[in-house]
Amino acid sequence: MNIWDNDNEFSLGRKVAYDDFTTIDWTHDFNLEELRKRKLNKGKGIKKHWNQLVDKSKGWIVVLSVGASVGILAGYINVISEWLSDLKVGYCSTNFYLNQEFCCWGNDPPLNLHCSEWVPWGQVLSTSNSSTSPALEYILGYSFYILFSLVLALVSAILVLNFAPYAAGCGITEVKTILGGFVIRRFLGKWTLLIKSVGLCLSSSSGLSIGKEGPLVHVACCCGNLFLRFFNKYKHNEAKKREILSAAASAGVSVAFGAPIGGVLFSLEELSYYFPLKTMWRSFISAMVASIFLKIVNPFRTGKLVMFQVTYTRNWHGFEMIFFLILGVLGGLYGTLFIKLNLWLTKFRRDSWLNKYPIQEVIAITLITSAIGFPNIFMRLDTSELLSNLFTECDDNSLSILCPKSNIFKTITLLLIASLLKLLLTIVTFGVRVPAGLFLPSMAIGACFGRIVGIIVQELSKNSQSFFFQACQVGTNCINPGTYAMVGAAAALGGVTRMTVSLVVIMFELTGALTYVLPIMVAVMTSKWVGDAFDRGGIYDGLIRLNGYPFLHNKQDYPSDHTTGQVMTRVNDLVVIPADQISLSQIDELLQYTNFKGFPIVRSSNDPFLIGFISRSELRTGIEHAKLSSTVDGSSPCLFDIVDSDSLGILEHGSFVDLRYWTDHTPITVTPTTTMGVVIDLFCKLGLRYVLVAKHGELLGVITKKDVLKHIDIIEYPKLAQGNNLA
Amino acid sequence: MNIWDNDNEFSLGRKVAYDDFTTIDWTHDFNLEELRKRKLNKGKGIKKHWNQLVDKSKGWIVVLSVGASVGILAGYINVISEWLSDLKVGYCSTNFYLNQEFCCWGNDPPLNLHCSEWVPWGQVLSTSNSSTSPALEYILGYSFYILFSLVLALVSAILVLNFAPYAAGCGITEVKTILGGFVIRRFLGKWTLLIKSVGLCLSSSSGLSIGKEGPLVHVACCCGNLFLRFFNKYKHNEAKKREILSAAASAGVSVAFGAPIGGVLFSLEELSYYFPLKTMWRSFISAMVASIFLKIVNPFRTGKLVMFQVTYTRNWHGFEMIFFLILGVLGGLYGTLFIKLNLWLTKFRRDSWLNKYPIQEVIAITLITSAIGFPNIFMRLDTSELLSNLFTECDDNSLSILCPKSNIFKTITLLLIASLLKLLLTIVTFGVRVPAGLFLPSMAIGACFGRIVGIIVQELSKNSQSFFFQACQVGTNCINPGTYAMVGAAAALGGVTRMTVSLVVIMFELTGALTYVLPIMVAVMTSKWVGDAFDRGGIYDGLIRLNGYPFLHNKQDYPSDHTTGQVMTRVNDLVVIPADQISLSQIDELLQYTNFKGFPIVRSSNDPFLIGFISRSELRTGIEHAKLSSTVDGSSPCLFDIVDSDSLGILEHGSFVDLRYWTDHTPITVTPTTTMGVVIDLFCKLGLRYVLVAKHGELLGVITKKDVLKHIDIIEYPKLAQGNNLA
Repeated sequence: MNIWDNDNEFSLGRKVAYDDFTTIDWTHDFNLEELRKRKLNKGKGIKKHWNQLVDKSKGWIVVLSVGASVGILAGYINVISEWLSDLKVGYCSTNFYLNQEFCCWGNDPPLNLHCSEWVPWGQVLSTSNSSTSPALEYILGYSFYILFSLVLALVSAILVLNFAPYAAGCGITEVKTILGGFVIRRFLGKWTLLIKSVGLCLSSSSGLSIGKEGPLVHVACCCGNLFLRFFNKYKHNEAKKREILSAAASAGVSVAFGAPIGGVLFSLEELSYYFPLKTMWRSFISAMVASIFLKIVNPFRTGKLVMFQVTYTRNWHGFEMIFFLILGVLGGLYGTLFIKLNLWLTKFRRDSWLNKYPIQEVIAITLITSAIGFPNIFMRLDTSELLSNLFTECDDNSLSILCPKSNIFKTITLLLIASLLKLLLTIVTFGVRVPAGLFLPSMAIGACFGRIVGIIVQELSKNSQSFFFQACQVGTNCINPGTYAMVGAAAALGGVTRMTVSLVVIMFELTGALTYVLPIMVAVMTSKWVGDAFDRGGIYDGLIRLNGYPFLHNKQDYPSDHTTGQVMTRVNDLVVIPADQISLSQIDELLQYTNFKGFPIVRSSNDPFLIGFISRSELRTGIEHAKLSSTVDGSSPCLFDIVDSDSLGILEHGSFVDLRYWTDHTPITVTPTTTMGVVIDLFCKLGLRYVLVAKHGELLGVITKKDVLKHIDIIEYPKLAQGNNLA
Repeated sequence: MNIWDNDNEFSLGRKVAYDDFTTIDWTHDFNLEELRKRKLNKGKGIKKHWNQLVDKSKGWIVVLSVGASVGILAGYINVISEWLSDLKVGYCSTNFYLNQEFCCWGNDPPLNLHCSEWVPWGQVLSTSNSSTSPALEYILGYSFYILFSLVLALVSAILVLNFAPYAAGCGITEVKTILGGFVIRRFLGKWTLLIKSVGLCLSSSSGLSIGKEGPLVHVACCCGNLFLRFFNKYKHNEAKKREILSAAASAGVSVAFGAPIGGVLFSLEELSYYFPLKTMWRSFISAMVASIFLKIVNPFRTGKLVMFQVTYTRNWHGFEMIFFLILGVLGGLYGTLFIKLNLWLTKFRRDSWLNKYPIQEVIAITLITSAIGFPNIFMRLDTSELLSNLFTECDDNSLSILCPKSNIFKTITLLLIASLLKLLLTIVTFGVRVPAGLFLPSMAIGACFGRIVGIIVQELSKNSQSFFFQACQVGTNCINPGTYAMVGAAAALGGVTRMTVSLVVIMFELTGALTYVLPIMVAVMTSKWVGDAFDRGGIYDGLIRLNGYPFLHNKQDYPSDHTTGQVMTRVNDLVVIPADQISLSQIDELLQYTNFKGFPIVRSSNDPFLIGFISRSELRTGIEHAKLSSTVDGSSPCLFDIVDSDSLGILEHGSFVDLRYWTDHTPITVTPTTTMGVVIDLFCKLGLRYVLVAKHGELLGVITKKDVLKHIDIIEYPKLAQGNNLA
C-alpha cells in the first residue's frame, strides 16, 4: 500500500495548517543575491569599488545598529522592570520614579537597601508619630503585593491580546522556525516589538515565575527585522534577511545573560539554520556591541558584564564529581517532566474551553503566584537575586538562611518547598498569553535542588572519617554548596533545552567560574543523556511539533529507504505548464484558479519532457512585465524554453510573451530511484523548496518541502501516522 | 576563448600534483553508512536493539579513548620537555631525572627555584670549598646552553628526517586539508605519532622559537586515526573517519591551551569541513576528557586548567579602548608581515638549494637562537613562562624588570629587542624540519609589544591632568600593562591565523580574564580587518595554497558567472562506458590503461543518454565479484541499467556480468546552463567529488572537484592564472 494515496487527508495532528506559511527557497535567494552582486561588479574604476564598499558596509551598518539598539532596549527594559518590581513592595518617598536601590543610593554602608526614603506599602498608613501594628503592616504589604502583581500581569495580558498576539510567550520556537526558512507575517513587526518590550517589563515585574531571557531574543530579532528594512539588499531577500536575524538573536542572548560568546554559540547551536563563518563573525560583533551598550545604559546595576559573579575560594575535589553526576541526572529528569507536562498543558490550553479565557487564566495564575510568593522568602525574591544568593559561597554577608550553622532541615525544607512550588508554577505559567521565558525559572529550580544537595554533602563530609571524603581535612569546610547550586542550575536548563556547548559557555560567562567548567560540562552532558533517553529534543522542538511549524532539522540525520518515486506527487496530479501551447490568458487563469507556489514546465501536454520550473511570483512578474507591451494580447503564446536561434527566428514573426528570463532552466532534479535519505539531505543542506523528479529528461513528479516534512513525521512517529491513517 | 582549452597544461604554480592525493566523496560515504545502518535495523527484538547499542557505543569508545590518550600523551610531553628544557641550564644533583621545580620541591618558601640540589652548569666545576670566577661560570653556562640546544634540535631533526618526514612542522595545514576530504597517506600513521611526540619534546625544549600547540593537534589526530582503526565502521568510511578526527583535533587544542571550549570552537571555525551537531557534542566530550586526563598526569604543574591564570584587581576604562584598537592594528600588521615573509621563505626553502640541507639549516638556526637567547632574559625564559610574566599585574612578587619604577626606557628597549628578535627568529624557524608550531611565539611577540604600549600608557597617565585620562585619579596607578600584553597576544595570534570567536574563547580560557573579553574581542576584530585588507586568509590558508593542497573552503562564497558548459570536460574528451556493448575484458582493459576515478555510463556509443555513474573502486569490486562465477568469460556483456523485467528476461538467456548493484543510477546532475556559483555550492555543501552535466537526459560532460578548484583559483587569482596561461 502506498501510504501517500490519501495525501490530502493526511494531517498528523497538525492544528495549524502550515500552508498559510510561506517556505523560502534558500538556493533561489542565494542565486538572486549572486545576480545582484554581479551587476554591482559590472561598473568600472573607482565607481565600482565605491559601490562595492557601500554594499558591503550595509551589512555592517545593520549589524552594528541592531547590536546598539538591542543593548539600549535591554538596558531600559531592565531598569523599568526593576522599578516596577520594587513598586510591588513599596515606593520612594523622595522620587517616586526611583527603585529601591537608587532611592537609598549614597547611604552608608553603600548598597544598604533599607533607608527612610524607601517606604514599604505596609508602613504607608503610619505617620511619623504613630505606627501601625506589625500584623496590619504585614496584611497591608501582602494586599498591595497581590494588587500590584495583578495589575501588572493584567495590563501586560490585555496589551498583548489586543495589539500584538505574537508578543505572547517566549518566541524562541517561532524565531527558530523563521530562521529555518519560513515566513510568519507580523511576527517580527514593529507592533510586536513595541508590545513585547512593554509587556515584558510588566510581566517580568509581576512576580510571575517567568524569565526575561527568551523574550529578549524575540525582541532582538524584531529590532533586526526593523533595521534591515532600510536596505533593499536584505528587505527583498529572505535568505539574506536570515543572516541578519541570526546575528540579532546572538545579540539578544548576549544581553539576556551578559554572555556575548554564549550568544553566538546559542544562535549557532540552537537557533540558526544557515550559519556560515561570515554570519558567525557578524553575530560575534553584534553580540559584543549589544553588551557594550547594555553596560553604558545600565551602568550602576553591577558595573560588570558578569551577572552572577562568583568568587569561589575553594576548588572542587574529585569525589564531588559523583554528586555533580547526580545533579545531571536530576536535571535530565526535571527537563523531561517539565517538557511532558508543559506540552500537555499547552495542548489542553489550545484545544479546550481554556482557550477562550486567556485573561482570566492570567489573573488566576497571578493570584496564586503572588499569594504563595509573598510569605516565602525564596519565592518573593526576584529570580535573578535568588540565583545570585544561591550561587554564592557562604561568608559573613550571605543570607543566613542559606548558610545554616546548625539546623539544616529547616533550610532544606524551605528550599524544597520553594523549588517544587516554582516547578509547578513555571509549568503552568510558561505558555500563558504574556511575554514569558523559562530560562531563569528553570535555572532557579535547578539551583534550589543543587543547593539542597550541596548542603547535605557538606553536612555529610563535615565530620566524616570515611575514605570517600578523605580529600577533605576533618574539621574544615571543604564543600561549597554554591557550586552545587551553579551546577544544578546548568543541569536543569540543559534538561529543558538540551543545549550543550552553548549552555556551558553561557554558564561560565554568567558566573565567571572558569575553574568549574568541568563539573558544569559533566552535569550538562549527563542531563542531556538522561533527557534524550526519554524523548529526543528540548522544549522548543516539542513546541514546534505541537504547533505544527514546518521545521526541518538540518542538524539531524533522517535515514529513510523509501525512494522518491514512492513519495513524490505524480505528474498526473500536478498542474504543469506545456511550453508549446499556453497563451497569456491561460496563464492568467492558472494564477487565478490555483494557488501553487510554482509550476514545472514541460515540452507539451503529451510529451512530459522537462524544460524548467517557474515560481508563482516570477510568473506573475513576468506576465505583468509583458502586459506593458502593446503587441501582446490574451492569445499571445508564451515562450519558456531557451530555444536555439532557428526556432527563435520563427517565433520572432509573431508577437509572443518572453518568459525565458523568469524561468529556472536548471532546477535541481533527482531520479525516481533516489532514496529519500539523499533527498532529505539535499533539502537540508541546500535549503530547497522543491525538487523535480525526472528520468531521462522526462518529468515524473515533484517533491516539495511539505512532502519531506510529512515523510519525516512518518519515519519519526510511525505509530502516530498509522493511527491517523486508520482514523 | 575558452580558458579551459589547455586544461592539461594548466597548473597555476601548484608544485605538488594533487592527483597523487585521493579526494573523498562525502555523499557517497554517507550513503554507504546509511546502507550499513539499514542492515543493522533489519534484525528483530532484543538482538536488533543490542546491535544498535553496540554500534552506537563504538563512536563513544573511540572518542573517549582518544580524549584519554591525548590527555595522557600531552601530559608526558609537557613533563619531559620541561625536564629537557631545564637540562639546558643545569641538573639535579640528587636525582638527575627531576626538573628544577621538582628538584627544589618542598623548599621554603614553596616553589623557590633556587636550591642547593639544583646545580647550574656554570657551577659544575666548582667544588664545595673552591668556587670558580663568575666570568668562567657565565661562559661555562653559555657553552652548555648552546651545546644542549644544538643536541636537542639535531636529534629531533634527524629523527624526523629519517623516520617520519610528515612529523615536521606544525601539521595544522595538512590536518585541515585532510578534514576537508582528502587523503594523505601515512600523515596520521603510528610512526608519525611516535616521532612527532618524541621530536616535539626535543625541539620544544631546544630553545628554538617554536610552540607545542599546533603539533599537539597533529598528535591528537594521529591518536584518533590509531583508535578508529579498531572499528570497521570508521576504518572503511572516510567520511565517518573525519567525524572522529574533528573530535580528536578539539582534544588536541584542549590540551594545548587547557581550553576545552576553545578546542571545540577551533575545530569548528578553523579546521573542520563537516561539523554537525553530533560531532560538536563528541568533540566537546573528547576535549573535556583530554583536559581531565592532562590534569591527572600533570598534577603539580599548576593544579589548575587555566594556564596563565591572571587576577587583575583593576577593571579597564573606556579610554583604553583606543589603545586596544591600536594593538589590534599592530597585530594585523604583524600577521601580514609574518605571513608574507614566512610564505616567501617557505617557497625559497622548498625550491632552492636550501632544500638539500635541512639538517644544516636546523643547526644554523639553533646556533643563532641559543647564542642570542642566553644573554637576554626575555629570550632565555621559556615562552610560556615569558607570557605568564608579561600577563601579570605588577605587585611585589613580579619580575622587577617588567615593573619599572623609574627608568622605563631600559625595559622598553629590552622588550623591543626581544620582540623584534623573536619575530625574525619565528619567521625563520616556522617551517624547518622539526615539529614546530607558531601559536605561543606569536603570542609572545604580541605580548611584548602589548606590554610596551601598556608601560607607555601607564607612564603617560600617571601624572597627566588631561581630559583624556580623567577616568584615572591623579596619583593612582590605574593602567595595568599586563592587560595590554594579553590583548596584544590575542591580536598578534589573530593576525597570523585570522581566527575570531575561537581565539577569544581560547584567550579567556587561557587567562580566566572574563571581564577583559570586550578588549580582546575588539583587538581580535581589528586585527582581522587590518590583516584581511592586505590578504585574505591566515597562514594556514597561505600554506595550503603554497603547497597546492586541494582544499575547498566551504565557509566562503565564490560568486562565479561562468556556466558549467564552459567549465566541464566535454563528453568527447571523456572515457565513458556504453551500456549496450561492453564486455568484461573491455572493462579490464579500461581499468588497466586508464586511471580515472570513475566512469559515466551512457546508453550506447552513439546515444549519450545518461544511465548512471560507476566509481573505479566499485567497478573493480563488481567485476572481481563476477569473475568468481564460472559462467562468465571475457566476452560476457556487462549489465548496468535497471532494465524492466522484459529486457531482463531476454538477458537471462545468456550469461552476463551484473554490475547494476555497483552502479549509481542517481548521480547528481546539472544542466549546462547552471552557473558555476551553484555548482561550487553543491560541491561545498554536499561534499561531492563530481557532478555530471546533462541536458534532457543526454550526457554532455563532467565537472570534477579538481575542475572546481582550478576554476576557483582563476576567480580568486585572475592575474596569476593569466600569467600562467601566457607562459
